[in-house]
Amino acid sequence: MTHLVRRFSACVSILAMAATCTLISANFCKNAYAQEEAAPTFQDVASSIYGQDVGDDDSGVNYVFGLTARYTGPDKTLPGEGKFKNIFYYLPITAMYYNPDDYYVSTQAVEGEFKTDECVLCHTVQTPRIVVDWKASKHSKSGKTDAMEKEQVVGCDACHGKNHMELRMPSHNTCGECHKKEHGEHIAGGQGSHSPTHIWDVSVTEFAWQIGKPGEEVAGCAQCHGIAGNRCDGCHTRHQFKPSEARKPDTCGVCHMGVDHYEYEFWYNSYHGKIYMMEGDTWDWDKKMKPQNYRTPTCAYCHMGENGNHNVQNMSTEYAHMGMYQLNRGAPKHKAKRDAWVKKCQGCHSPRWAKLHLEAMDEQINISFTKWREAVNILVGLYLEGLLDPMPADLAPDWTGGHTMNLLPGGSPRFYNVSDIERMCVEMIVYQVTAVYKAAAHFSIDDVTYNRGAFPQDRKLIEIKSEASKLRRFATLEKEVGIEHKAYDFWKHGEYTDLLTGYKRKEGDYDESDPGAAGEHH
Amino acid sequence: MTHLVRRFSACVSILAMAATCTLISANFCKNAYAQEEAAPTFQDVASSIYGQDVGDDDSGVNYVFGLTARYTGPDKTLPGEGKFKNIFYYLPITAMYYNPDDYYVSTQAVEGEFKTDECVLCHTVQTPRIVVDWKASKHSKSGKTDAMEKEQVVGCDACHGKNHMELRMPSHNTCGECHKKEHGEHIAGGQGSHSPTHIWDVSVTEFAWQIGKPGEEVAGCAQCHGIAGNRCDGCHTRHQFKPSEARKPDTCGVCHMGVDHYEYEFWYNSYHGKIYMMEGDTWDWDKKMKPQNYRTPTCAYCHMGENGNHNVQNMSTEYAHMGMYQLNRGAPKHKAKRDAWVKKCQGCHSPRWAKLHLEAMDEQINISFTKWREAVNILVGLYLEGLLDPMPADLAPDWTGGHTMNLLPGGSPRFYNVSDIERMCVEMIVYQVTAVYKAAAHFSIDDVTYNRGAFPQDRKLIEIKSEASKLRRFATLEKEVGIEHKAYDFWKHGEYTDLLTGYKRKEGDYDESDPGAAGEHH
Amino acid sequence: MTHLVRRFSACVSILAMAATCTLISANFCKNAYAQEEAAPTFQDVASSIYGQDVGDDDSGVNYVFGLTARYTGPDKTLPGEGKFKNIFYYLPITAMYYNPDDYYVSTQAVEGEFKTDECVLCHTVQTPRIVVDWKASKHSKSGKTDAMEKEQVVGCDACHGKNHMELRMPSHNTCGECHKKEHGEHIAGGQGSHSPTHIWDVSVTEFAWQIGKPGEEVAGCAQCHGIAGNRCDGCHTRHQFKPSEARKPDTCGVCHMGVDHYEYEFWYNSYHGKIYMMEGDTWDWDKKMKPQNYRTPTCAYCHMGENGNHNVQNMSTEYAHMGMYQLNRGAPKHKAKRDAWVKKCQGCHSPRWAKLHLEAMDEQINISFTKWREAVNILVGLYLEGLLDPMPADLAPDWTGGHTMNLLPGGSPRFYNVSDIERMCVEMIVYQVTAVYKAAAHFSIDDVTYNRGAFPQDRKLIEIKSEASKLRRFATLEKEVGIEHKAYDFWKHGEYTDLLTGYKRKEGDYDESDPGAAGEHH
Repeated sequence: MTHLVRRFSACVSILAMAATCTLISANFCKNAYAQEEAAPTFQDVASSIYGQDVGDDDSGVNYVFGLTARYTGPDKTLPGEGKFKNIFYYLPITAMYYNPDDYYVSTQAVEGEFKTDECVLCHTVQTPRIVVDWKASKHSKSGKTDAMEKEQVVGCDACHGKNHMELRMPSHNTCGECHKKEHGEHIAGGQGSHSPTHIWDVSVTEFAWQIGKPGEEVAGCAQCHGIAGNRCDGCHTRHQFKPSEARKPDTCGVCHMGVDHYEYEFWYNSYHGKIYMMEGDTWDWDKKMKPQNYRTPTCAYCHMGENGNHNVQNMSTEYAHMGMYQLNRGAPKHKAKRDAWVKKCQGCHSPRWAKLHLEAMDEQINISFTKWREAVNILVGLYLEGLLDPMPADLAPDWTGGHTMNLLPGGSPRFYNVSDIERMCVEMIVYQVTAVYKAAAHFSIDDVTYNRGAFPQDRKLIEIKSEASKLRRFATLEKEVGIEHKAYDFWKHGEYTDLLTGYKRKEGDYDESDPGAAGEHH
Repeated sequence: MTHLVRRFSACVSILAMAATCTLISANFCKNAYAQEEAAPTFQDVASSIYGQDVGDDDSGVNYVFGLTARYTGPDKTLPGEGKFKNIFYYLPITAMYYNPDDYYVSTQAVEGEFKTDECVLCHTVQTPRIVVDWKASKHSKSGKTDAMEKEQVVGCDACHGKNHMELRMPSHNTCGECHKKEHGEHIAGGQGSHSPTHIWDVSVTEFAWQIGKPGEEVAGCAQCHGIAGNRCDGCHTRHQFKPSEARKPDTCGVCHMGVDHYEYEFWYNSYHGKIYMMEGDTWDWDKKMKPQNYRTPTCAYCHMGENGNHNVQNMSTEYAHMGMYQLNRGAPKHKAKRDAWVKKCQGCHSPRWAKLHLEAMDEQINISFTKWREAVNILVGLYLEGLLDPMPADLAPDWTGGHTMNLLPGGSPRFYNVSDIERMCVEMIVYQVTAVYKAAAHFSIDDVTYNRGAFPQDRKLIEIKSEASKLRRFATLEKEVGIEHKAYDFWKHGEYTDLLTGYKRKEGDYDESDPGAAGEHH
Repeated sequence: MTHLVRRFSACVSILAMAATCTLISANFCKNAYAQEEAAPTFQDVASSIYGQDVGDDDSGVNYVFGLTARYTGPDKTLPGEGKFKNIFYYLPITAMYYNPDDYYVSTQAVEGEFKTDECVLCHTVQTPRIVVDWKASKHSKSGKTDAMEKEQVVGCDACHGKNHMELRMPSHNTCGECHKKEHGEHIAGGQGSHSPTHIWDVSVTEFAWQIGKPGEEVAGCAQCHGIAGNRCDGCHTRHQFKPSEARKPDTCGVCHMGVDHYEYEFWYNSYHGKIYMMEGDTWDWDKKMKPQNYRTPTCAYCHMGENGNHNVQNMSTEYAHMGMYQLNRGAPKHKAKRDAWVKKCQGCHSPRWAKLHLEAMDEQINISFTKWREAVNILVGLYLEGLLDPMPADLAPDWTGGHTMNLLPGGSPRFYNVSDIERMCVEMIVYQVTAVYKAAAHFSIDDVTYNRGAFPQDRKLIEIKSEASKLRRFATLEKEVGIEHKAYDFWKHGEYTDLLTGYKRKEGDYDESDPGAAGEHH
């Protein structure tokens, strides 16, 4: 600690000098001033002040606050898919395990063909728990599905193959060989479903967030989407694969949580969730999801129903892009779906009760969109007058390779590489407008109004107006004084910003004829 | 996706044109410029750019990002209560089920009078789970309370009536017919209690948040307050009505959670909560809340005590408006309450331990208020110099029909329709000052200091100073240059803002002679 | 309510007058204007407007919004430790119970020497639950550890002593008398461990956050650190002291939660956590932490291992200051630790799977630091040009007694008493960069990318650039117009700010020769 304090004082004097030292100052402020040729990098200057050598960030050195490390990027990446494969890549883990059909290759560590007994013998030592889990599963007992001819044990080879040099990593297709009904429903899909076509091909390989950012930053996107679309063990965790597990809300919570999904938290904040917390451990989860068996509905209860329909979109509302599109689900044209929901609630609630609650949801959504339009009106006004700071043209090129405003109607809300006020608007539509919908739909009465919905949206509207006011006041002042404000260069360049894929985009990189464009799974 | 990308490019060119097109530009920027008569609405312009027709938001159309939808408002509303009934309304669900004594009317769907056996027969099909739950409840077994003359089964008709055309929705009064002690305590109440007089009449029908906003936005407020005040099944969920459930903290968590309540989360973050998480499922929750029976205290343990006193205010601290009023609970004048708390802790802890922890709470609260006063000093300075942007007069009229600053001493902290810096100050007092108190009182040692209390309050103080500095710098510059800044019109008007009830307020709307003013339940 | 509304209107008129009243205005705005001698305090003015008397905050009065209360400070404090003891103090609770070896003194309430039977007799009434718990513990049964000569019951006196006038509060040293292996591991420690030397002496007695702030504000810091370092009942709660409890993640969650620790939440958001939620209550927690016994790893499973190594640092990664230092844990020089982790995952996962996931973590961290350096570059540029508002010299003196920028290389990130943009940068490194690391390390796939990691860091980078742009635009305008901006006085002074310990720091207060400086436990 003494050491730290001493070092601290040393820094103060060095930096005091630095303030008057043109070379170092110019370098630290390379965004504000013209740069000399071969000027020292940020890392060089940090090094001169901090006394730690500049080095590569994969060296294993402990860089205090990381200021003298130099970015190296991943050693190994795998090519992307679909139309954008030339500008977007995967980390190996993302592709290999989350889209195994297309990317998995066996490790080739062991030669030979093996039977389940032999697998078990060796893996009891190698990876003991999966053996314990498999033994506890129905797979280890003799049984059959409709797709099987006779009763059998489903051993290791059934899913992974016998030849250890050519092991398979199972996908939904593997499970589908025996579980035809469930697999058929899973791939039937539709917008907003877990079908691989929608949730992987469309959402991952062609979605702007993925494409616009370096692959290591969006591994998490691909992992959730891969689990939901390409695998079955996201909901039935290996190697027990229990239906009882998939009936519990927690299995859904790995993905359906956090700032814009929040279904998990909202349900937990409702009476339904609270009752589950208090007594769910005493219920028999092997039973069908009927009101007689469960005191409160869970995710699967409502979205899959008694017979476990694996097309979750089927039991969901009309597609509304996570609630970011405005849609009155109670309108006569959607009567069939509304009636189905009301009926679902009738496990416990009167039709009127359910109907009125859902109508309240409709109104809560509608008024939320008035706030959103009020915000967009302000934003677009600034854009048309050229008052955004920065304007799109002052930013790093976006994933289209150009400079489009992220919130242009029809555009894709982008969270990065935008001006502050655009980001505020993105948060309003992606986090808050959707929260109103999802909290209402999952009966979190506090969230819909106070904790995550209407009141936080009020806050964001104030924030947006406050920023708009500042942007206009600056512009008015600058005009009066005769200053022509140009967006600072740090909006366009920076160690991270220079890594965005928009910079890599070249003519022809975008392949419109690629089959991925049609959303076909391959 | 191809489609989306194409549409995207189309938008870019259209908007590029738009930038030079006076008509469209003027419309988008109607806040910045004078408006022509019958100028196109925001929706019209969005429609021309986006290619989706303008339509009513209750039509069932899927409006992409909701930009071309037109707000219709709820079809049906119910009149408000109390002094503000002329400007505030309820959604049907809010009133009918959360204040049933005043609003519930039977659906009149079925004719006839029925006995419990008959109800059960039909509702085993209609709403099967409530039958299962009732059968699992004590109500379905013969028994009696002190208020009953003989042992009896409490069947459906006891609470709902026999005549299906005139069914009742039970309120606390219904339960109170048999459970006199509990009901008596419930309605005895006092400020900060669950008594309907306080938590419904005062907090809902006369509270500024409710009154100042459209009814569909504050349904959640009324729902929590209605559950706590007007019904008993908020804590003892229907149709089991178990005391054991109300002893668990989760039943309280539906309402006592989120940004300003947080008691639930703070308790869960304490050792008390963690021990409950780890072993609470093994405790016998039918037992009285004594230290011999429970390893850690829960909400009910401390706030209701061994005999389940249903006046929760009785076992709470002095009333301090959720912790927003400053109050030293350890002062000699509050000795009786402090001694009671210390005694409560003696299930496990020495009196000194408890006393010192509570004294630490007192100090943590006191210092938190110094930060708050530092912030208010800055805010009021800006107000008196006319530097708020906007000043109250530049905003939509507030719930009083006038333009009062929301943080004037004696005022009601308003989260919406205020300037940015006022909202920051509201967040400090409502979220952070209260968090210090509640985290300390529920022993979340991380929250009180780091996660939700002192450190986030430091952040807010910086934010407030930073905003104050900007407002002053703008003013100084504008004065020097000779610009008279007027708050932009978007503070006063907008699709949402124009819906605030302040605009509806007319002379005479506010009925000071209304009995509700006295907080009397009706 | 009527009352409140009336009072409201009254305030409006008074404040309207106030706006033109020099005396009051000058007082409210004492930061902006020169102050008269003996000018009324903020409290006096609030009092004149609000009609509530000014009084001391420990009086027990209910101060509405706390505006007329006067800060008194704690009655009693205990001196700090180590080099900074002259400027930093503890609240009694903090010191006495969280560092009992140095501070605990018996209450001396009862005279006499007692045997366990006698203790139990009396405490069954005094503090009944601890008797129940002790009776349920192994301590109440005859048994022995390696350090004991014969089987024995561990009664009250074994830990607390017999003489009630000189009772002891046990520390880790007390437990260590019998549990030598565990205690030896506990104190062996190293940076980032639970050893009292590191986690108490270094982190609490010499850490800037503690030292720079009043003791009542950082009690929570000392409590977590004291529990982890100085006591054993933080993980094995008294008086059961169950190993089974310490194996569950929840016991760790009291401290390892919230904005910068988050290990608890991230693990809970992973499949590991979800599976624990769904079935952990059916596992036998008395068993060793081997894959055969537990379906998923918990904190203790990975960080303590099968034999419960109590030096948690041993089973952690290389020290990287909570992830705030950049470190490639997969580099050849850290091969032994990486291999140990991969082996740990082999309870269920193939070595390749584990390796690729950990390599993805490495890359996610590295790219996160590019964003951080981009931000620091902007910040330091502003600092060197004197554009921070305020500059360090315009702030209250910091804990060093001087005015150092909190983010100078080598400095200690300070959350308070800094400019807005410095605070933003602190949040980026302390909350977001660490979140990327911790979410990846605990396999929360949503958090690492979307919920808490990369995307929130994008938001912060935009916020930082937006603030930097404003600071530069102001400076450019002011220069053009000829205004010399001076930071407003509210950055330097205020009711809270004046309490910061930097103001108390005098020459000689900082004792560099103190043994605490060497991190030696005393």
